[in-house]
Amino acid sequence: MPTPSREVHLVRRPEGALQPGDFALITTDVADPGEGEVLVRNLVMSVDPALRPRMSVGQELGEAVMGGVLGRIEMSRNAAFKEGDLVNSRFGFREAFVSDGKGLAPLKPEPDLPLEAYMNALGGPGFTAYGGLLAIGQLKDGEQVFVSTAAGAVGAIASQIAKIKGCYVVGSTGSDDKVRWLLDEAGLDAAFNYKNGPVRSQLRPLTPKGIDVYFDNVGGEHLDAALSSMNTLGRVPVCGMISGYNEAGSRTSVRNLSNIIYGRITLRGFTAADFMDLRGRFQSDMAGWLREGRIKTSETIYRGIDQAAAAMIDLMKGVNLGKMLVRLAE
Amino acid sequence: MPTPSREVHLVRRPEGALQPGDFALITTDVADPGEGEVLVRNLVMSVDPALRPRMSVGQELGEAVMGGVLGRIEMSRNAAFKEGDLVNSRFGFREAFVSDGKGLAPLKPEPDLPLEAYMNALGGPGFTAYGGLLAIGQLKDGEQVFVSTAAGAVGAIASQIAKIKGCYVVGSTGSDDKVRWLLDEAGLDAAFNYKNGPVRSQLRPLTPKGIDVYFDNVGGEHLDAALSSMNTLGRVPVCGMISGYNEAGSRTSVRNLSNIIYGRITLRGFTAADFMDLRGRFQSDMAGWLREGRIKTSETIYRGIDQAAAAMIDLMKGVNLGKMLVRLAE
Repeated sequence: MPTPSREVHLVRRPEGALQPGDFALITTDVADPGEGEVLVRNLVMSVDPALRPRMSVGQELGEAVMGGVLGRIEMSRNAAFKEGDLVNSRFGFREAFVSDGKGLAPLKPEPDLPLEAYMNALGGPGFTAYGGLLAIGQLKDGEQVFVSTAAGAVGAIASQIAKIKGCYVVGSTGSDDKVRWLLDEAGLDAAFNYKNGPVRSQLRPLTPKGIDVYFDNVGGEHLDAALSSMNTLGRVPVCGMISGYNEAGSRTSVRNLSNIIYGRITLRGFTAADFMDLRGRFQSDMAGWLREGRIKTSETIYRGIDQAAAAMIDLMKGVNLGKMLVRLAE
Repeated sequence: MPTPSREVHLVRRPEGALQPGDFALITTDVADPGEGEVLVRNLVMSVDPALRPRMSVGQELGEAVMGGVLGRIEMSRNAAFKEGDLVNSRFGFREAFVSDGKGLAPLKPEPDLPLEAYMNALGGPGFTAYGGLLAIGQLKDGEQVFVSTAAGAVGAIASQIAKIKGCYVVGSTGSDDKVRWLLDEAGLDAAFNYKNGPVRSQLRPLTPKGIDVYFDNVGGEHLDAALSSMNTLGRVPVCGMISGYNEAGSRTSVRNLSNIIYGRITLRGFTAADFMDLRGRFQSDMAGWLREGRIKTSETIYRGIDQAAAAMIDLMKGVNLGKMLVRLAE
């Protein structure tokens, strides 16, 4: 018997800020799995800034948006999966789907850690923060660190890993409430609301010893400000440039790039593909830090596939604190 | 008896393009060397784009411009130097000076190589090209390479080292004559005059296999164009950003920087300080390549200290082919 599934399709290329009309909620019927196939019921969907540029280039129109999701096997005719197994996949923005097993990564959660952790500190955001800071940024204990969108999913974890490594950490974020969260919960040394004034004039007095590592999620004005405070041989792991994601071609204008010459600065764009060898060490470090309460996470959770487009739109507006998720089923 | 020496002073901070009035030619008397001192007569002066940003910040006003120069010991009261010895120093833009020996680097030229080579392929430009391409750019044999200002001092050598390494090499330059030099003399695979049209639309058809290493001397529009053609895991050694050097704060605007994320691109600013360990290997490689005729160099040589300011102004206009030098004495 076919399973009804609602999906969120991208129906036109967004121009500038995402609009509700860029998306449509479509009801489909998912056929029963055939021999060698499984039916997956999606449980928790990741809503990620990196999806935005793909909506301009890459994501097909008239199809469900591709995004990370955690699901449960509901029916299996594939010996590699049994009913009740949890699987990660890129088949988000839909309630259910049939798969021959390709692109499904089994997940065996630790019983004492919440499932949401696998979409946050123990999932993509945590691994991105960990590898970006330690492998790409070559962070050394006690360095001077600046993290932009420090209350976002990746930024919050990057900031706290830097604190665990004994660094002085400054974060930027988009509201006074988030500034308080960074100082009171995440334990940063300093934080500021970038909407309260120019980034450069707010950042400068908070980085009296300069910046050795700038973990960039934003680009644009933030990157310019950081470049004007970088120490010699500083590193800029470039995780995202969200400031440009709503612009055509994801453009973000930077004017201080020539500072990298005499400062001998490295900017390096990366994805998790650059440090897959760290996966095991990451899982063990991060599970330990979570159990010890040394990494605090927060999630903003919308409920129901009909809220998925709104979650994406609100993410780009910075409405969320921490990781933006959509709960699709229990 | 004091030695008269003419010097070129920076007398005001340049705004935009350099003007003759930014400089003054001053005649001074250099006292005889005291105990432990030497009198150096400068022979050949380097005129270098990197001097331009220092004229906005760093270079003192009302003093001789600091720049690389090759000189000869004319009188010595210091046991470490004898009359006739050649020395490199940063005390350019003057005819003669007295020194206690600090900042003087003795030079023992190979008798079969011209002295100018030590200001070009065997000097700073050559070493910058060599280390920038091989150490910072991590060039691998047979890669796809783009070099901007490829007929300039550093660019010409970087381009030819890449050819020696079996790479496909495209160069940009500012005149049709220089395009011909790059193709006919330096042996590049392709070259274009960036004044004949947008960099991006000229570069794209010349890089059908993309770009693995972009050796950046220019920044701005060149960097944007290269970023839109970089291959995954590409490297951009950033040697200079001359496009912004005549602007306040050396600013050069770049809009495509977010391309570095999914392409996992590394941009790295550098100076020779980053690869001093390569010095010996460089000298032996480069002397060999020069003797074998595998590196062609060219110099644009002005004569007399009274032409030094003009040489600097013309360098920034791109009048020179190859290394810009001023001959002060034989």
